[in-house]
Amino acid sequence: METRTAIKGAHMNATANIEIRNGKPSDHQSIVSVMPDWWGGRDLSSSVLKIFFIHFADTTYVAEIGDDLIGFLVGFLSQSDKDVGYIHFMGVHPEYRRAGVGRRLYQRFYDGCAANDRPIVKSCTSPINKLSIAFHLRMGFEIEPGDGIVDGVPVTMDFLRANDPKVLFRKELRKK
Amino acid sequence: METRTAIKGAHMNATANIEIRNGKPSDHQSIVSVMPDWWGGRDLSSSVLKIFFIHFADTTYVAEIGDDLIGFLVGFLSQSDKDVGYIHFMGVHPEYRRAGVGRRLYQRFYDGCAANDRPIVKSCTSPINKLSIAFHLRMGFEIEPGDGIVDGVPVTMDFLRANDPKVLFRKELRKK
Repeated sequence: METRTAIKGAHMNATANIEIRNGKPSDHQSIVSVMPDWWGGRDLSSSVLKIFFIHFADTTYVAEIGDDLIGFLVGFLSQSDKDVGYIHFMGVHPEYRRAGVGRRLYQRFYDGCAANDRPIVKSCTSPINKLSIAFHLRMGFEIEPGDGIVDGVPVTMDFLRANDPKVLFRKELRKK
Repeated sequence: METRTAIKGAHMNATANIEIRNGKPSDHQSIVSVMPDWWGGRDLSSSVLKIFFIHFADTTYVAEIGDDLIGFLVGFLSQSDKDVGYIHFMGVHPEYRRAGVGRRLYQRFYDGCAANDRPIVKSCTSPINKLSIAFHLRMGFEIEPGDGIVDGVPVTMDFLRANDPKVLFRKELRKK
């Protein structure tokens, strides 16, 4: 007899039906149109350039249930550091958070990194984004030392622009 | 006896002193701070993400005379199409235009493409940017057919975002 543990969240039972596929150029418009909703009104869509979906489609992923977009990850293989895969942006539909969608998107990116001999994954987030910091720590990322501290967390002050501290994450996918 | 042809432009004689080098992360702030001036008040700096200077430094270039920034090119090697190098952004200081700075930046990018076995260079611009269209045609680019016409020029309507036509350029660096 099969028993099923009750899981919190309106859509948890649907997560078994999540399909993850590579991104394509036509995904860009769908993604930027939901971003303000997914980020609580902040419009960060200018960072999610369509060129990622054209020229970095092989390390960019979309999570769907049927035809509904529930998550995406934009990543690339660093040209400057041949050991590094970089996660530029990841987002999950608010109603599907804490259901493992982000974990599955990251794991697909790890697979892409492994297939391209990239043993190190890097990412960053704002120190205000406590959920993202907790997510990266659960996923086994280390926080890089940086040159400042915000709310007790090491940050790099000018990483993506002047006076905009970021928490830098690093994870080794396999030990050599 | 040496003779010298008169050249138009305030700074033409200085172009012999132009040095072109690879970009680095600290160039980003200098570049975004001059972009509104160089583009006649339009602030396009949100497209010039710092990650290009961190992770694509080997195909990103800066032109300087002494310590003065006079041009830059942000490019990358497409992951999705292993034959293609893509020029994402190029800008030249208004006082140094028509002096060959853009040509030299493009040629450095061609060298980077050749070194990475990329026989095709692609780029795009807005149909309103007549100077950019003329520059690409002088540089031997072809305009890709597209799905519309603006001012007599073939455009692709939704290339980088919906209803924002772009002129797509393509050049083969060497015939096979």
